[in-house]
Amino acid sequence: MRTINIVGTGNVAWHLATAIKGLSHYKLQSIAGRSDKAIKNYQDLQASFCLIQELRQADITLIAVSDDAVHQVSKTIPYDTGLFAHTSGSVALDALSHFEHYGVLYPLQSFSKKDSITFKEIPICIEVAIESDIGILENLALALSKKVTRISSSERAQLHLAAVFANNFTNHCFTMAQELCEKHKLSFDLLKPLIVKTVNKAILSNPVLSQTGPAKRNDTQTINRHLNLLENPNYKEVYTTMSKAITTYYEQKL
Amino acid sequence: MRTINIVGTGNVAWHLATAIKGLSHYKLQSIAGRSDKAIKNYQDLQASFCLIQELRQADITLIAVSDDAVHQVSKTIPYDTGLFAHTSGSVALDALSHFEHYGVLYPLQSFSKKDSITFKEIPICIEVAIESDIGILENLALALSKKVTRISSSERAQLHLAAVFANNFTNHCFTMAQELCEKHKLSFDLLKPLIVKTVNKAILSNPVLSQTGPAKRNDTQTINRHLNLLENPNYKEVYTTMSKAITTYYEQKL
Repeated sequence: MRTINIVGTGNVAWHLATAIKGLSHYKLQSIAGRSDKAIKNYQDLQASFCLIQELRQADITLIAVSDDAVHQVSKTIPYDTGLFAHTSGSVALDALSHFEHYGVLYPLQSFSKKDSITFKEIPICIEVAIESDIGILENLALALSKKVTRISSSERAQLHLAAVFANNFTNHCFTMAQELCEKHKLSFDLLKPLIVKTVNKAILSNPVLSQTGPAKRNDTQTINRHLNLLENPNYKEVYTTMSKAITTYYEQKL
Repeated sequence: MRTINIVGTGNVAWHLATAIKGLSHYKLQSIAGRSDKAIKNYQDLQASFCLIQELRQADITLIAVSDDAVHQVSKTIPYDTGLFAHTSGSVALDALSHFEHYGVLYPLQSFSKKDSITFKEIPICIEVAIESDIGILENLALALSKKVTRISSSERAQLHLAAVFANNFTNHCFTMAQELCEKHKLSFDLLKPLIVKTVNKAILSNPVLSQTGPAKRNDTQTINRHLNLLENPNYKEVYTTMSKAITTYYEQKL
């Protein structure tokens, strides 16, 4: 039975704690926050809470705090034995190099506290500093998920960048589409079947095969008509830039 | 029993023909193409085919050809009785104003011939020139789909523009994410659970509530690190423009 501490009280910490509580060969020892206030939000999860400085050592300590806090928070942990791993997609392994045994356990998903998460389906990317530590981290990752991959810090940075395109940018395109609908008193629901179809095709086949629209055809007449319909300069700029990227991409494919 | 002709042999025509053949109060009279060659692709659909100039008049004639061909092709139809409707999202109603009775029946979906389509779930936007023609077009739309909405040509233009953001631009973001993965020998599959989650949240809740990432936080350090990782100037430009649009959008919300 390995003991685990979780440092952090955000959404990743909450979902990790919930998943770890259900594992048979691991014991969730404590969840630690930077303040009493943060800890109080976690009363519904039956677990032991404390402040970081009160933590007792565990076999594995998972540091699930915001990207820019990983290094600083890890320095407030009052012990340095066992394996330490942060859960961030964009923070390099060496943010924890002040420990002897350290690594990364990055679950590639966007977490909200209220979501019901099937951790088993979430890809987990792992990395360790010392090769002999891989077993302990890989075993935990495999207990949590069916999809475990070893990647380096530089690969993880590229993956995190790709995730920004696949999640942040697409989501904002949905927001812009929704705003355009609302502005003209059209229901965003009208676009939902199209959105579902777009994504199903991208997931099941290949997004390159299902690209359509004026930019792919380099239909400058429609593109200009659309630009005239847009009033917000940011929307115009997104339209122009995305259209140029699409046109260029498919011209180069030919 | 109303008779229907379909002019066009593309994907929209094919799916419309398939759906109409299944309706009880309508008879698919003929599908007409501009050439024998196009018609030959449709042998698996048991229906009567002819060239446009050979068409006999029907109660409803649906013109399902590419946007820029609607007006020109409609002029080659050898009769002018009955109701004519085109199926294009971006073509105004008056492209058919040389007929007496005309309108638009726009199914808002992206069609590929091989897809299995549940027409009942596809929003259909309708418009007529003469108010007394609405019944005949609305009845056909309601026979095809549960989701029928009357919108004007200018609303349809806005909706089509919103669809470019919701479909074309998001799909190219998936393509860029996929290319970034492939370039670094990372599996695009790693991002798929994230993509599914992004879309489910946007559809079931509101994309504004689920925006995350460096641009929303205006985390210029991560943004600059990402820009340094991108080599392709089009990717850099998309990253910069989308990030600016996101940062500005959420700053204005505060």
